[in-house]
Amino acid sequence: MIIIMKPNVSRQEIKAMIERIKKMKLEPHLLRGTERNVIAVVGDERNLQRQPLEIMPGVESVVAVLKPYKLASRESKRERTVVKAGSLSIGGEKLAIIAGPCTVENRSMLLHTAKAIKRLGAGGMRGGAFKPRTSPYAFQGLKNQGLKILAEARRQSGLPIITEVLDPRDVSVVARSADILQIGTRNMQNYELLKAVGQQRKPILLKRGMAAGIDELLMSAEYIMAQGNYQVILCERGIRTFNDYSRNTLDLTVIPALKERTHLPVIVDPSHGTGKRDYVIPMSRAAVAAGADGLLLEVHPHPERAMIDGQQSLSFEEFGELMDDLKKLAPIVGRNM
Amino acid sequence: MIIIMKPNVSRQEIKAMIERIKKMKLEPHLLRGTERNVIAVVGDERNLQRQPLEIMPGVESVVAVLKPYKLASRESKRERTVVKAGSLSIGGEKLAIIAGPCTVENRSMLLHTAKAIKRLGAGGMRGGAFKPRTSPYAFQGLKNQGLKILAEARRQSGLPIITEVLDPRDVSVVARSADILQIGTRNMQNYELLKAVGQQRKPILLKRGMAAGIDELLMSAEYIMAQGNYQVILCERGIRTFNDYSRNTLDLTVIPALKERTHLPVIVDPSHGTGKRDYVIPMSRAAVAAGADGLLLEVHPHPERAMIDGQQSLSFEEFGELMDDLKKLAPIVGRNM
Amino acid sequence: MIIIMKPNVSRQEIKAMIERIKKMKLEPHLLRGTERNVIAVVGDERNLQRQPLEIMPGVESVVAVLKPYKLASRESKRERTVVKAGSLSIGGEKLAIIAGPCTVENRSMLLHTAKAIKRLGAGGMRGGAFKPRTSPYAFQGLKNQGLKILAEARRQSGLPIITEVLDPRDVSVVARSADILQIGTRNMQNYELLKAVGQQRKPILLKRGMAAGIDELLMSAEYIMAQGNYQVILCERGIRTFNDYSRNTLDLTVIPALKERTHLPVIVDPSHGTGKRDYVIPMSRAAVAAGADGLLLEVHPHPERAMIDGQQSLSFEEFGELMDDLKKLAPIVGRNM
Amino acid sequence: MIIIMKPNVSRQEIKAMIERIKKMKLEPHLLRGTERNVIAVVGDERNLQRQPLEIMPGVESVVAVLKPYKLASRESKRERTVVKAGSLSIGGEKLAIIAGPCTVENRSMLLHTAKAIKRLGAGGMRGGAFKPRTSPYAFQGLKNQGLKILAEARRQSGLPIITEVLDPRDVSVVARSADILQIGTRNMQNYELLKAVGQQRKPILLKRGMAAGIDELLMSAEYIMAQGNYQVILCERGIRTFNDYSRNTLDLTVIPALKERTHLPVIVDPSHGTGKRDYVIPMSRAAVAAGADGLLLEVHPHPERAMIDGQQSLSFEEFGELMDDLKKLAPIVGRNM
Repeated sequence: MIIIMKPNVSRQEIKAMIERIKKMKLEPHLLRGTERNVIAVVGDERNLQRQPLEIMPGVESVVAVLKPYKLASRESKRERTVVKAGSLSIGGEKLAIIAGPCTVENRSMLLHTAKAIKRLGAGGMRGGAFKPRTSPYAFQGLKNQGLKILAEARRQSGLPIITEVLDPRDVSVVARSADILQIGTRNMQNYELLKAVGQQRKPILLKRGMAAGIDELLMSAEYIMAQGNYQVILCERGIRTFNDYSRNTLDLTVIPALKERTHLPVIVDPSHGTGKRDYVIPMSRAAVAAGADGLLLEVHPHPERAMIDGQQSLSFEEFGELMDDLKKLAPIVGRNM
Repeated sequence: MIIIMKPNVSRQEIKAMIERIKKMKLEPHLLRGTERNVIAVVGDERNLQRQPLEIMPGVESVVAVLKPYKLASRESKRERTVVKAGSLSIGGEKLAIIAGPCTVENRSMLLHTAKAIKRLGAGGMRGGAFKPRTSPYAFQGLKNQGLKILAEARRQSGLPIITEVLDPRDVSVVARSADILQIGTRNMQNYELLKAVGQQRKPILLKRGMAAGIDELLMSAEYIMAQGNYQVILCERGIRTFNDYSRNTLDLTVIPALKERTHLPVIVDPSHGTGKRDYVIPMSRAAVAAGADGLLLEVHPHPERAMIDGQQSLSFEEFGELMDDLKKLAPIVGRNM
Repeated sequence: MIIIMKPNVSRQEIKAMIERIKKMKLEPHLLRGTERNVIAVVGDERNLQRQPLEIMPGVESVVAVLKPYKLASRESKRERTVVKAGSLSIGGEKLAIIAGPCTVENRSMLLHTAKAIKRLGAGGMRGGAFKPRTSPYAFQGLKNQGLKILAEARRQSGLPIITEVLDPRDVSVVARSADILQIGTRNMQNYELLKAVGQQRKPILLKRGMAAGIDELLMSAEYIMAQGNYQVILCERGIRTFNDYSRNTLDLTVIPALKERTHLPVIVDPSHGTGKRDYVIPMSRAAVAAGADGLLLEVHPHPERAMIDGQQSLSFEEFGELMDDLKKLAPIVGRNM
Repeated sequence: MIIIMKPNVSRQEIKAMIERIKKMKLEPHLLRGTERNVIAVVGDERNLQRQPLEIMPGVESVVAVLKPYKLASRESKRERTVVKAGSLSIGGEKLAIIAGPCTVENRSMLLHTAKAIKRLGAGGMRGGAFKPRTSPYAFQGLKNQGLKILAEARRQSGLPIITEVLDPRDVSVVARSADILQIGTRNMQNYELLKAVGQQRKPILLKRGMAAGIDELLMSAEYIMAQGNYQVILCERGIRTFNDYSRNTLDLTVIPALKERTHLPVIVDPSHGTGKRDYVIPMSRAAVAAGADGLLLEVHPHPERAMIDGQQSLSFEEFGELMDDLKKLAPIVGRNM
């Protein structure tokens, strides 16, 4: 930790700070500069991070040297994590393509979709049973009945199932039906839910919050891992900016930035990331070209009749075209399909 | 609802859209313009909002005419809502000043603080027992023990207590101790938690999410109200922007903007809104000058020793100075203390 | 234009608005809804856009139907524009790769760089002679001497030259040396400069402002085109968001979004867009995969010794590796190198 | 400057960095930590800031200790600067209220407005002669004729005149008519224009760019001051965020934050800052309560007929009401009118 003192700091203020650091069993080094004095602290500064040093007299600012996450960091684990769910691997050489409707609307549409995406090469199936909706009056999902339909789709297609969980009280029932539990963007910092899924032993797909910095995303992963569940997949799904031409601003640079910092796999959701069907195909290609480990895509038999998010869902035909593009693109980035 | 068609739209596409609208028992009006055709829809468009009309062939964009919230809107209720919790009223002529530490650290500091803020004129006391922390390794609050200490502070001081609830499973226990339940910024769209507090009959303080638009904040209030709990207090606490000189960007213009749209009271949290003690006093004054119904302030007997958020907590002395300023300021905006 | 009236609008207010519209020689259509009345306006609403209709009594909001730009829109010109500068075409089937140092440091480094990037396949050369620097004390470029060196690099390498112009008074001198004039991000809304380059007959590279919406970018292109210069190339270079892990947030979704709205070519600058060398290669691939017409890249013989922006410059070797990737990637998106 | 090295840094990399620092005549201090090594640099680090140290092998990140601005900083000048223009002082005890129309529409409206605002207590008059408009087809101001009308308004009313300059070529002619030259938000980083006004000896009102950080604003002030013109007034006018309910997001916390860092006066433009007439009065009060040295307000005899920005202009009556509020508010913050 580096403590930058104000230009007019007094001797006594410096002395008080040095004593405080020593009390924490850390080692202070005073560096007298031409315009500012700086105190560098050697030792595990994480203790010090809990103290409001900024408020001590004479302090101008405080800079952390160490990252706040440990289990999620590449320093704790150099080799890449490959998360496995049934036949699907995420983070390995093969791109993980997870597709399906925003929500489970009924049995026949879901089974029909499962069959189609399987045939077109998807490795997993997504579908919401519990839906977080902005409006309390909107359709909130088929809930338990939806979970049953998802389980049937898995049996028929062999595709592992990914579905969202919203409430700590639902975690165990969702975990019985699903292969991967999804934490949605609105719940990225719902810490009680993170703890609850951390106690499961199924992989967790953690979506980035729409205003979450990269460290905050990794701290939310750390919450899950601190409970003993190390199978975490990170998902970029667009952030909120001043842009109004798209639903969110897809931040693809986060892919190489996360790969620098963490061993966890990173996938991209271009459906929510753009909110517009016409942008999904180019941005899916871009995500893979930027190094993503996979994609989470909304695909619907009839997007124009979808109950939710039809404007951002691909038809089967479009999904098939995208898969063809990705087959050609994957080898360029050292991947396969 | 207004549907703007593409410049090269075909007759058939227009016909298909008109039929779709009629099927929903709504009334379409086709307006042929020089460069664009527009279809205006008369009737309760909320049904139509669930359909992805943007995806229909020939559609360029869709504009909603009606707001998505009803119970929270000024149209459903013209007179201002005054929320009452014990001796405290929020939304009336008297400014509601709620103060206290970020977290309940121990019994003596809390009772000491309660006494001091009461003497200085606070109308309510804040204090966290369950704390949402970015790091899983950070102190997470005294939990049930904290609730007991808060209850004792109320008995001794007579001040109503406001404290945060994080988990639907804790709602009833927190509601037994607290006078007002707080939903924090990270949980503004934790819909299961909103439903749970909506079933209580205690006032709810709903903090704006750090990337929440004004309509989203009101839709979250609507979630609570749709469960029958109409005692909702809105709280601006800063949004996330590119600014890095302060913890958040306090958006005070939201006060008059909310007052236009909703009958619910609006208070401001300048402690989290700025993250820096030196900015709290000027921004508290500014919030009241902009029309806020009250303030939520972090006050600590020894900010430099606070376990959490000391850098943004006022000392008793500073709090007293602020109260003096507010006493003079309140009458200018038609308020009193 | 669609004018949404307040729920409590009076008959007289509606009448006044209708008369105002008729006075502008436009055709009003009143639509009476269940909760709101709406007035739709037929005719060229651009006249009406200059009037503050929002302020008329009874008006809730006003929605424009037509886009504010004309010359830049795809409606005015369906086929894609291909901008030509010497041997370089931007917007055609061949990807336009423009490379070079942030700034012209001296003659030998520039000639050396020109030779190297030419050999590795670049189609154009970038290099700043007039540099916009955040600090008045920082190196501001070699100015006229820099222009001479750039002209020599063109003679030796045959590569067309792109360089920035900062001041309307310098436009003609820069236009004599350069093949393409660059308008930097800080000057995207420097309208006097836009008018000045609009009077030239050389192509203009217009960089998106760091907080510019898509319509604002196109309006700045319209400024140039309204002066008679239709050879405008748009350039995404990152926007400003809350992200702090990268210099800017590269918004690649803007590529398909611009392609929908305009016939002008779109290139991407991943060097400024990310600010970090390690992110430039993956994001260059991603930009091409998303449909960009080309790239603007900082390349330097010794990035660690560069006077400006070394942290985001590629070495020759890295640039060569990227070119190899792009050769494989281009055909997947219907392009070649 | 603090250089944080990567966890796996080699001895040689550390040695190379230390030598580089010594070469710059600075003093390196190596601090060996448990997880990271840090090199602290003593001496005037501004030289070092021009070097891309981040790119040196083994470097994780670099933290500046010194601020990049000097003349604008409070360290170079402790006492507050009071800028004077005719009878108007900005930065002293008396609040500076500058009012007037967005644009000079014609002689009679301007003279009428000057008389009215003078009577109501304004200390200066604003009015645009050269207007930066998003659209090239929109009215761009009366230009030189507008300047003449402004000069006449000053003669009649005695109010000093503030007007915008857009082009370095117009600076001297505008400076002949105006008392204060305004640099608009879109030109905050138009460095050639900043240099040109820096060579004048008239006060400059520098508006914050809509995506400008606080350091960037101060660096733009530094550009002007480095030319010898120290009479700079800073102006907050709203930043661009995800908010869409207002034209911009007025960032009032910047007032105390600037006061910490600079001796220059700070005023606020709530007209552009909110874009909506109904928000201007509360936010004007809030700006003064937060410590602003003055306000820049759009006032128009008939806002509903204004050529530009009528939706955010106050009528004379509203301006009069605001002035009454401010008279009561000023003493609370140690000011007068």
